[in-house]
Amino acid sequence: MTVVGAMRRDEGASVKAVRFQAPGRLSVDDVEEPRLEEPTDAIVRVTLTAICGSELPAFRGLIEREPGGIGHEFVGSVSAVGEGVRRIAVGQRVVSPFSVACGGCFYCKQGLLTACERFQTFGRHLGGSQAEYVRVPNADAMLEPLPPSLPDDKALFAADLLTGVYAALTLAAIRAGDSVAVVGSGPTGLAAQIMARAMGAGQVFATDHHDYRLEVSAKLGTAAMKSGRDVPDRVKAATGGRGVDISVEAVGTAEALADASILARRWGTLLSLGTELDKKPVIFPIGDLTGEHIRLVSAGSPPVRNYMAPVLKMLSGGVLDPAPIITHRLPLSEAPHGFEMMSARSDGALKVLLTP
Amino acid sequence: MTVVGAMRRDEGASVKAVRFQAPGRLSVDDVEEPRLEEPTDAIVRVTLTAICGSELPAFRGLIEREPGGIGHEFVGSVSAVGEGVRRIAVGQRVVSPFSVACGGCFYCKQGLLTACERFQTFGRHLGGSQAEYVRVPNADAMLEPLPPSLPDDKALFAADLLTGVYAALTLAAIRAGDSVAVVGSGPTGLAAQIMARAMGAGQVFATDHHDYRLEVSAKLGTAAMKSGRDVPDRVKAATGGRGVDISVEAVGTAEALADASILARRWGTLLSLGTELDKKPVIFPIGDLTGEHIRLVSAGSPPVRNYMAPVLKMLSGGVLDPAPIITHRLPLSEAPHGFEMMSARSDGALKVLLTP
Amino acid sequence: MTVVGAMRRDEGASVKAVRFQAPGRLSVDDVEEPRLEEPTDAIVRVTLTAICGSELPAFRGLIEREPGGIGHEFVGSVSAVGEGVRRIAVGQRVVSPFSVACGGCFYCKQGLLTACERFQTFGRHLGGSQAEYVRVPNADAMLEPLPPSLPDDKALFAADLLTGVYAALTLAAIRAGDSVAVVGSGPTGLAAQIMARAMGAGQVFATDHHDYRLEVSAKLGTAAMKSGRDVPDRVKAATGGRGVDISVEAVGTAEALADASILARRWGTLLSLGTELDKKPVIFPIGDLTGEHIRLVSAGSPPVRNYMAPVLKMLSGGVLDPAPIITHRLPLSEAPHGFEMMSARSDGALKVLLTP
Amino acid sequence: MTVVGAMRRDEGASVKAVRFQAPGRLSVDDVEEPRLEEPTDAIVRVTLTAICGSELPAFRGLIEREPGGIGHEFVGSVSAVGEGVRRIAVGQRVVSPFSVACGGCFYCKQGLLTACERFQTFGRHLGGSQAEYVRVPNADAMLEPLPPSLPDDKALFAADLLTGVYAALTLAAIRAGDSVAVVGSGPTGLAAQIMARAMGAGQVFATDHHDYRLEVSAKLGTAAMKSGRDVPDRVKAATGGRGVDISVEAVGTAEALADASILARRWGTLLSLGTELDKKPVIFPIGDLTGEHIRLVSAGSPPVRNYMAPVLKMLSGGVLDPAPIITHRLPLSEAPHGFEMMSARSDGALKVLLTP
Repeated sequence: MTVVGAMRRDEGASVKAVRFQAPGRLSVDDVEEPRLEEPTDAIVRVTLTAICGSELPAFRGLIEREPGGIGHEFVGSVSAVGEGVRRIAVGQRVVSPFSVACGGCFYCKQGLLTACERFQTFGRHLGGSQAEYVRVPNADAMLEPLPPSLPDDKALFAADLLTGVYAALTLAAIRAGDSVAVVGSGPTGLAAQIMARAMGAGQVFATDHHDYRLEVSAKLGTAAMKSGRDVPDRVKAATGGRGVDISVEAVGTAEALADASILARRWGTLLSLGTELDKKPVIFPIGDLTGEHIRLVSAGSPPVRNYMAPVLKMLSGGVLDPAPIITHRLPLSEAPHGFEMMSARSDGALKVLLTP
Repeated sequence: MTVVGAMRRDEGASVKAVRFQAPGRLSVDDVEEPRLEEPTDAIVRVTLTAICGSELPAFRGLIEREPGGIGHEFVGSVSAVGEGVRRIAVGQRVVSPFSVACGGCFYCKQGLLTACERFQTFGRHLGGSQAEYVRVPNADAMLEPLPPSLPDDKALFAADLLTGVYAALTLAAIRAGDSVAVVGSGPTGLAAQIMARAMGAGQVFATDHHDYRLEVSAKLGTAAMKSGRDVPDRVKAATGGRGVDISVEAVGTAEALADASILARRWGTLLSLGTELDKKPVIFPIGDLTGEHIRLVSAGSPPVRNYMAPVLKMLSGGVLDPAPIITHRLPLSEAPHGFEMMSARSDGALKVLLTP
Repeated sequence: MTVVGAMRRDEGASVKAVRFQAPGRLSVDDVEEPRLEEPTDAIVRVTLTAICGSELPAFRGLIEREPGGIGHEFVGSVSAVGEGVRRIAVGQRVVSPFSVACGGCFYCKQGLLTACERFQTFGRHLGGSQAEYVRVPNADAMLEPLPPSLPDDKALFAADLLTGVYAALTLAAIRAGDSVAVVGSGPTGLAAQIMARAMGAGQVFATDHHDYRLEVSAKLGTAAMKSGRDVPDRVKAATGGRGVDISVEAVGTAEALADASILARRWGTLLSLGTELDKKPVIFPIGDLTGEHIRLVSAGSPPVRNYMAPVLKMLSGGVLDPAPIITHRLPLSEAPHGFEMMSARSDGALKVLLTP
Repeated sequence: MTVVGAMRRDEGASVKAVRFQAPGRLSVDDVEEPRLEEPTDAIVRVTLTAICGSELPAFRGLIEREPGGIGHEFVGSVSAVGEGVRRIAVGQRVVSPFSVACGGCFYCKQGLLTACERFQTFGRHLGGSQAEYVRVPNADAMLEPLPPSLPDDKALFAADLLTGVYAALTLAAIRAGDSVAVVGSGPTGLAAQIMARAMGAGQVFATDHHDYRLEVSAKLGTAAMKSGRDVPDRVKAATGGRGVDISVEAVGTAEALADASILARRWGTLLSLGTELDKKPVIFPIGDLTGEHIRLVSAGSPPVRNYMAPVLKMLSGGVLDPAPIITHRLPLSEAPHGFEMMSARSDGALKVLLTP
């Protein structure tokens, strides 16, 4: 039985939400509570959200963005559903993908939901998830119910980070036994290492400039190496002189992509996870990719919605654990501090969780 | 801009619809015009529909069914949409899949729309398509707009028959150059032959008991053979003694499936298209399948919605032509005669189209 | 530099080999030392071999076989190579697949090496591996060099058991996160459980009639259940009422295959690992497979040669460990005792290793 | 029964062969007849060979090469086999792949034969095919017997050109119904167009600078367009504003690859067929590939050996016809004239066949 979304409090009640104001400046404001706008909407009361590395370029002023709500990862409890919602019910505990798709267009029909012709992402086209409540369009198709036994701080990683690398590695056609190198050991790179291992990778290598990240990487069983000119030789020495089956760029620059390309073997796969690569033509060794028959797979913003079920099963089954990536748990009101730490790469900050 | 579905005529207007009454007995009745029931519904004015072989077992009294609307293949024009519909607009020319799915459940997220936990098919859970108007739930995700240049009598085959065999052969992992045998040259078997050839099959074989079908089969370039004990030897002689890469059962009986299994090569694929195989345990040479490493793929009611786009491109591009399967074009009022011909396999009847 | 295979000892030297004499009766004999017969042959000095469950039906008298050498799993050191051998050198430590293929025929070109038109398996067409020396045809293409750090009692499992289930699960298109059930917890079933987990399975279930096997299964983290009528309900209860994504038959009978089919979800996969299923037509619920769209994949004797590299990387990388399956290590001379234990399912016998 | 390769004529007999001498200069010389060198060799008497566009850069002096035999496409009759050859027999009519692989190394075991650690190609590491006789190493695994009914001027295209584009499009995961654009309508680009259509492409576009090529392209049913700035708009207009599913570079320059990348849709595939792309870092819009999630597949020198069987079935079955690409048939002695025409793009030259 579905419930039409009557207001949960007095008309015009206000709720807390983090808002991007300008580079380096976030506020935690009282905003108007989100309400049902379409018959297919749901409202979710957020119980856990997080800061994503993809939000840092705007915080650092490297890319422009409008002031407004921020955040796109969340789990919570459904507090209202529109009259066209049938599958999802009030009270259900759910995780949402970081973006919403129509389900019917050319791209959606191929499962490429993030290329949807009516694509909307939280914290940009839609309200931000670093808030007490979020409106979710197309709720029946988008929201994924959670098993009761799975805690929020695991389920949250199905929203974007772990499901994203699962989708990306699947699109890269990873096979159990593959050797995998990851350039960049921030939250995304570490998630890729955890997931590659869970998918049966035989060898995992990673590089980073920051020691505190390499320490986490090493604890995961990865062969962690300081970024440097000796990396290709070390990786080749450990892979019969060939390089790895799958080389992952987890930094977001063309330079990192070129670095990763050197680690891939002939006929191997170069997997780009970055979403902010400069679109200007740059100097790039494209002939090395084609000459070595290296396949380039770009999965920076993959269609996570379709991959949530297996990732939730892995989280429930104990095959997968995001705990090593979580370094801070803050109340929502301290989101600005969380951004500062992640931006400064201070305090060993990797993934910062926020509780409304 | 979408339009809320105001009644197109006087309240309570009646429209024509074919109705199954009892085995061997159909009527063409004035029924209440379908109306929008959910905010995600659309109403389609049917411009072409058809009789499907899967409706014959009930017509012949071989399986039970309730009286009611019948038919699940149709193209038409959208006459009304609910207030939650955004992608599909009134006036649009569309084709619908034969069934409707929720888009959000475990199966839908894997593209297995016909296993949807809220699966509804036209002419059973929903109104039949052999009618002037049909209500389509979840219209944004289900309806596929048609290119203006594609005529109804081609587009109709994207609803079920050609998209069904495309999906099935894709699930069977057909490769260009494969050899394919089809047991049964009724509409489904002929569609499989047309599609296999369009997908690059190097050799196509088919069998049937009826000469009029084999004649159509031969015109398609298929090596057409009367069903009989010599078939396996003839197929093996033409395939280096091995049998075919993909052997297709297009009859709907366990006997036909066993016949088809004999034609497949070691490590080949046995593709079942039948939807009415008896679920009782039967005598079956299962050890031959496993011993020969033959893979069994069952795709009798495949998720056509996700495969419509490529099939429409093939129909538009002239790679695919269903014309050889169309033997009769009748007004909707003569649907009962169409069923009689198809059931009796008289008048050379293969696919019978109906115009409301 | 390769070395033409001069005799390593006096002409006509004899070596030890286990020989099948009759049901229940094996001997350990002095036999003529194998010598190079073709320019593409190698001779391998066996350092570790094993007894395979597939040898038990003949030992029990359930199927006929000729007297002769027995065994097809082995690792060892190359002691001689023919003049046409270029890639493999004397002194190299290698693992061999359980069978040999030509590399050029219709099947080999598709990677289906066990369907090779010139297929030869050790202990049948070729000498048995339960011996001091074995002749390996087509050595360049067949033998896989071993990393020095990988011990024999791990590498041996790349010859058949672990590579076999890797190949089978890959042919079944397993995905990380899948739920997997295994009917039968003998060595093959346990290997399937270990491998499914290493490939990222989210849930693993298994059944068996024997408690000592279920105990090993439970130690692997599998949900182990005594075979019985309650199994389907228990598996469905743990999988949202649907059944598992992949259900594996690891017993070798049509009954076990039917049992496994009940555990698979709609559109799931039924994977048969048995190689001795009766080829007579039997009563089988084939309509349940097609009606539920369950795909049947038969991989009882898969082409392990092409899958050795990833499995060796998994064994080296610590992702995979066969130790829980190894219950006995005997000298070659005690092979008959090993067969007796395995045949009687006594002494907790699972995998019995033999050292020449 | 195989035959050890006794000399077919007097010891030291000489045979005709085309030899590259210097840029712009070829000779047709009497050379020593090739003889069996390894027990796994075969000698093939060439009945038809051809000039490949990949030989032109050296002819034009754009890349360096040593003087010596030239040519790598051929069909012929086996005239001698080494004592280790079992599958191939003297007198057999065969086609050879353009290169030879060991069948056992890391790459060969994955089917990547052209990355073989002992890779040898005709006309470079091995004798050239533009000759009366050619020695073929590893003959059992490399040579493919031909059906008697298939004429030389079709079978020849299984050696490289048609099998190459089949392999490349397969590696690019083409699906029936896809839209395909080809940048470059020389022999390779035209072969890609023919093959894409045979594999069921719904739309095929192509560009070139040369009218004589566009005319051939148009005859194949391709939407052929003069290279120019309007091409992207025209392709997008014909593909719903999205671009094509698969965009193929068939020129061999980084510029052509960039041009092709503009034609691909979001999440589409960019397929590089060029083998001579400059390996220096160049200015390239790599961020457009990653930003649009375009997958890059490089298949300039694909492992054709494993794809010959389906291509031969397509050629035999009439699904595929290379005739439109063949513009000249010359005796071997006129090979230099053939090179001049192809190099000058004069006389409408596309594929030039040579008969010894």
